[in-house]
Amino acid sequence: MTAYLDHAASSPLRPEARAAWIEASEILGNPSSIHHAGQAARRILEDSRERLAGTLGCDPIEIVLTSGGTESVNLGITGLWRAAGAGAAIVTPLGEHHATMDTIAWLEAHEGARVRAVALDRLGRIELASWSDALAAPAVATALVANNEIGTVQPADALAGAAADAGVPLHLDAVGAFGHLPLSFRELRGGAHGATGLCALSVSAHKLGGPIGVGALVVARQAHLAPLLHGGGQQRGLRSGTQDAAGAAAFAVAAELAVAERSAEAERLAGLSRRLLDGVRAAIPDAALLGDPVDRLPGNVHLLFPGAGGEQLLFLLDRAGIAVSTGSACQAGVPEPSHVVLALGRTEAEARQVLRITLGRTTTAADVDALLAALPDAVTRARGR
Amino acid sequence: MTAYLDHAASSPLRPEARAAWIEASEILGNPSSIHHAGQAARRILEDSRERLAGTLGCDPIEIVLTSGGTESVNLGITGLWRAAGAGAAIVTPLGEHHATMDTIAWLEAHEGARVRAVALDRLGRIELASWSDALAAPAVATALVANNEIGTVQPADALAGAAADAGVPLHLDAVGAFGHLPLSFRELRGGAHGATGLCALSVSAHKLGGPIGVGALVVARQAHLAPLLHGGGQQRGLRSGTQDAAGAAAFAVAAELAVAERSAEAERLAGLSRRLLDGVRAAIPDAALLGDPVDRLPGNVHLLFPGAGGEQLLFLLDRAGIAVSTGSACQAGVPEPSHVVLALGRTEAEARQVLRITLGRTTTAADVDALLAALPDAVTRARGR
Repeated sequence: MTAYLDHAASSPLRPEARAAWIEASEILGNPSSIHHAGQAARRILEDSRERLAGTLGCDPIEIVLTSGGTESVNLGITGLWRAAGAGAAIVTPLGEHHATMDTIAWLEAHEGARVRAVALDRLGRIELASWSDALAAPAVATALVANNEIGTVQPADALAGAAADAGVPLHLDAVGAFGHLPLSFRELRGGAHGATGLCALSVSAHKLGGPIGVGALVVARQAHLAPLLHGGGQQRGLRSGTQDAAGAAAFAVAAELAVAERSAEAERLAGLSRRLLDGVRAAIPDAALLGDPVDRLPGNVHLLFPGAGGEQLLFLLDRAGIAVSTGSACQAGVPEPSHVVLALGRTEAEARQVLRITLGRTTTAADVDALLAALPDAVTRARGR
Repeated sequence: MTAYLDHAASSPLRPEARAAWIEASEILGNPSSIHHAGQAARRILEDSRERLAGTLGCDPIEIVLTSGGTESVNLGITGLWRAAGAGAAIVTPLGEHHATMDTIAWLEAHEGARVRAVALDRLGRIELASWSDALAAPAVATALVANNEIGTVQPADALAGAAADAGVPLHLDAVGAFGHLPLSFRELRGGAHGATGLCALSVSAHKLGGPIGVGALVVARQAHLAPLLHGGGQQRGLRSGTQDAAGAAAFAVAAELAVAERSAEAERLAGLSRRLLDGVRAAIPDAALLGDPVDRLPGNVHLLFPGAGGEQLLFLLDRAGIAVSTGSACQAGVPEPSHVVLALGRTEAEARQVLRITLGRTTTAADVDALLAALPDAVTRARGR
């Protein structure tokens, strides 16, 4: 492997997070047990919850640990919608992650949910007037804080404010944003009262250097949310199941590091992204950056190469030792046009000619240069096919 | 800590499983990514799935990895019931784990499920005639292979055979049984055709020396099962979410070791259990073993101490450095009478006077003797309160 440029699919586990997992895994006991062994595990768990709360700007009790982003998003959307009662619409932008789309599609097909879709503009931004119009109660709403494919960052505070104004509970999917953008649950919730405004926020550990299989849903104290997993009644009854103290400890360490480094790292990644973009433009003048050129995830470079199939490019670059993606890793392997690119008003052909290049903590200028060295030939060959 | 005798709550992570996790955690990439990095993670994942399938007697594709026993049980029961269509009853014995009881209570309260409960006898055994009567289609059924509190082992093959005969899909909860009892999904499924008979079986890693936060639901190829988590469509669409290759690797290693050692270890634990039971009977003649005295989990000693509160005993023993439980760890901290002991026809007072002592891989004769040394005084003091 020469260059791993697919950090949005999964970012390498931080050594400090691995060490925290190993240390916590030596502690014996189920955190729900009331003897000393259980309480030792419980202390690691609650300490981790407190540290995570510090990085997310919420109270520790608001952290509901899950198995990752997909579970968090499912719980956030389904939980808010079921608690809101039949008759509530679901408001969702186009171009969301499949965890959101497929959860909503399930609720629509099997539980009678009505869906109100909100369009994106050509840069992937949610139009705020349309968002506010769609929010007419009774409804629940969900949106990505930053798009996982094209990197466009939404005005989360305005989305949350509109939901609070409309008296609508909101779930935000911050899986790709947490650790990479400034984020405070408390500030986003703002003056929202009771079970409206920002009520739930999804995050995942492995997108910021924690382990795969660990995530959280921040659930506001006042929110009404139905559980998805029933059983021992752990975590305020919102998510039953033995709690993974080692995973929580690793997540907390990774999150603290990511948040502490965020500002400097964002600047570094923005510099590398510019280097990449400048190089691409010099070599392949008709390549186009998709998504918002300004308000975007600092490590995301999403490119359209007219006439060059994204799948072919991915394979050719992979053969050159460079790992990139055509879209969400969850859909990789299924060569479909990107629904996100389609939501930008692009054609189906264009939605098959994109690459998502995502830089992260371990990315160096040499990685970027390796991609720049391999890309022109790959594009030429992909166009020739 | 002098003696950890709460293996049913959580068994210590095996060093080999920890090492497998650490090694796999060095591998970078999302197993759904199609580049080389992703495929390296995919290979670990699929190798682990294959090894797990070997220990469970199923095909690798039948292994759906989850976040643990609670998710597996929720998916097994809810998934089979939703796929069976409205009108199907849910057949369940009394005295099941809370993951089962609370999942069924949810489906009853919110989705209109009708429930048919099957009684246990005084030893905690499901009466087979009642089981067969309750199985009238349309229905789905669920049962514990071995009770997690009192240790009684059910005739799983007969339960599954009756379900197949009745044309009813069955979920078995083998969370406490896997690695401790002989278990083959293929043999239990027997000659069942299509989507009836044994269709799904829940297991968990941390009950046999794997990590917390990892489990699986074995889902027969022909079974009809609705997913709980929607998104990227991983694992036959039955369980979306980035797959945890490191967790799967650790689970596979722990499961292989547990299955390889099972027979010898069962004999060793049965010997230690006898030593414990003989000692208790000598010192506290009115103590009673609950559950089936013959067909029981080899490491489970479940005792009723008339007149002595289980909670008090637990605290007094904990102060002496001995970790035991009054019941399922998931309910620990809530001093309620055990619903399992009540299901045996015992009184509410008796259901508060029990201790679950569970021996495991790291348990020694010294641990048993430490408990035997501390127990008489604890019982005397608990009776005096």
